[in-house]
Amino acid sequence: MEQMIGELLTDTISRIVEVEQECMGAVRKRVDNLTKPPGSLGDLEEMVIRLAGIQRTEKPVMDKKAVVVMCGDHGVVEEGVSAFPSEVTGLMMGNFTRGKAAINVFSRRMGAEVIVVDVGSRAQRLSGVRDEKIKAGTKNMAQGPAMTRDEVVRAIEAGIAIVKELSEQGYKAVALGDMGIGNTTPSAALTAAVTGRPVDELTGKGTGIDEMKRRAKADIIERSLSVNGIGKQWRSLLEPIDVLARVGGLEIAGLVGVTLGAAAHRMAVIVDGVIAGAAALLAYEICPQVISYMFASHLSEEPAHEAALAYLELSPVLHLRMRLGEGSGAVLMFPLLEASIAMLNEMATFDELGL
Amino acid sequence: MEQMIGELLTDTISRIVEVEQECMGAVRKRVDNLTKPPGSLGDLEEMVIRLAGIQRTEKPVMDKKAVVVMCGDHGVVEEGVSAFPSEVTGLMMGNFTRGKAAINVFSRRMGAEVIVVDVGSRAQRLSGVRDEKIKAGTKNMAQGPAMTRDEVVRAIEAGIAIVKELSEQGYKAVALGDMGIGNTTPSAALTAAVTGRPVDELTGKGTGIDEMKRRAKADIIERSLSVNGIGKQWRSLLEPIDVLARVGGLEIAGLVGVTLGAAAHRMAVIVDGVIAGAAALLAYEICPQVISYMFASHLSEEPAHEAALAYLELSPVLHLRMRLGEGSGAVLMFPLLEASIAMLNEMATFDELGL
Repeated sequence: MEQMIGELLTDTISRIVEVEQECMGAVRKRVDNLTKPPGSLGDLEEMVIRLAGIQRTEKPVMDKKAVVVMCGDHGVVEEGVSAFPSEVTGLMMGNFTRGKAAINVFSRRMGAEVIVVDVGSRAQRLSGVRDEKIKAGTKNMAQGPAMTRDEVVRAIEAGIAIVKELSEQGYKAVALGDMGIGNTTPSAALTAAVTGRPVDELTGKGTGIDEMKRRAKADIIERSLSVNGIGKQWRSLLEPIDVLARVGGLEIAGLVGVTLGAAAHRMAVIVDGVIAGAAALLAYEICPQVISYMFASHLSEEPAHEAALAYLELSPVLHLRMRLGEGSGAVLMFPLLEASIAMLNEMATFDELGL
Repeated sequence: MEQMIGELLTDTISRIVEVEQECMGAVRKRVDNLTKPPGSLGDLEEMVIRLAGIQRTEKPVMDKKAVVVMCGDHGVVEEGVSAFPSEVTGLMMGNFTRGKAAINVFSRRMGAEVIVVDVGSRAQRLSGVRDEKIKAGTKNMAQGPAMTRDEVVRAIEAGIAIVKELSEQGYKAVALGDMGIGNTTPSAALTAAVTGRPVDELTGKGTGIDEMKRRAKADIIERSLSVNGIGKQWRSLLEPIDVLARVGGLEIAGLVGVTLGAAAHRMAVIVDGVIAGAAALLAYEICPQVISYMFASHLSEEPAHEAALAYLELSPVLHLRMRLGEGSGAVLMFPLLEASIAMLNEMATFDELGL
């Protein structure tokens, strides 16, 4: 029997609870007694303490981790917002299946599984891509809602279902990846809506448009927000899911689901760049408790990314001037999380050193 | 027959040449044709391009890498500049030999060899520590020169000799590590001398002194510079090696040698925190061409570190609020350098994708 639309989402939200403080306290105590000045390993100390709280254990692990690359296309591409045509989404999905894209290369090195999901591309079915297609691309948000509320809920639930499976297989962390020509446009729109920051300030050059096109892109984002009735005061009229439906994307909704699902299953969520950042913002609007499960990885060159992370009070640890997406920055954080766990497990304490 | 003091240093400096532009151009061309928007992998692109120039090949590798942890003690500790006594240097060296310190833990995960070198500690000989001791700690620089010119040259040459061996064994990169209670004090002094920035601005809390002690530490650094005749105009009177002898440290001099030796042997040098940063500054003052061989890893909490990196125009990629030393931040950069090489070797080009 089909599950009712929205039931999995509601159930997932109800399962998300605060991270466990007692384990965090115990781990902090050990970390403070390791052979180093207290606090001197900075964010690495905070990482392992939070992982303990997320996993509800004094011995957090990260043997199995994955990146979920949600793929979707965007009707708003017809407005000329991107340097590349929508066909490139499908071509890159093929590249993912052959293991030849940046996300494959980095994930192999970092020991992370790559799960490619077609939640809304215009491409044909591809072997090696999980088919969760809701529809073949969103509608043009500059002319009306990108998706219906039902569609967005189904995309979120597709993300939740994937993370549930990963959790059952013992995965302890999931990185947010994306592919979708045009998707910096809805990401900037969502970031503007949630943070209240000016659209022009949040609109970047995406895959590489010039300044004139960037300004036109900002105008299209303004128009999309206005056409869809998303003003500064939207919270008095709309739910976050409505905003996501109107000016979001199917892959962004999928990543909202991955984020909510990960928190519900006590898994760490590694936020990537501007698309993942927009998804993290929406997941936070839907369920603020998810914030304790999130780790910011890199700081993207796309301006909306900094705004999203600042709103979430997350500090990116990798400053690599990247702007690729796919989860390529997020998976580069795995060695740091693993180093934080190794620190806890393998370093001597001052007691052991006789100090 | 003993080599004349200074001969190895002079010879090493004469071997340091610019990185090879032709290989860099060829690698840049391939990087620009990989399946990603040009430039979208940011610093990772620049890393592999520079590694190509350093190694003089279109196929740079990084199978073998090491961290050299130079250890030394400091006479200035008797002025009360540190939260820990000098004995901790030796205790931590013992911790290194047992594989239980942060640098051991991180290096194991990153696949880097740890080479612990006693270039000037007060500790006894320790099995597992390479003995290159010049003397048992520097003199108190607040009362006169920390070292003689001969001593500093011998410490530099010890570093050069180690890297020469690593190069012969096929190592392609070396991270700068340090251990030495009190060594943020000479590091801040050297950074003030080279950059010209105010001492108070560059003096941090080291392993954890309070604000009153931090101010006293700044006064001691000012006094050390003044007692040793190192004013704003020192370049008209002194060579960089004199400054290093007067207000430096034996482990800092050792790291200057590692840096110069690495550049002479076409190896990448990964700069760690404030002590490695001071060594990098002095290596640069001695031979400006070394700059092309350096990679900044993390940004330390110690204020002199940011000043040193800014002077060298190096951008740290890891923002982890660390302040431990040992090379602990530097080795965390190896996965990024390796990812940059994997990107070059394993990603498809747009031609291959049919675009």
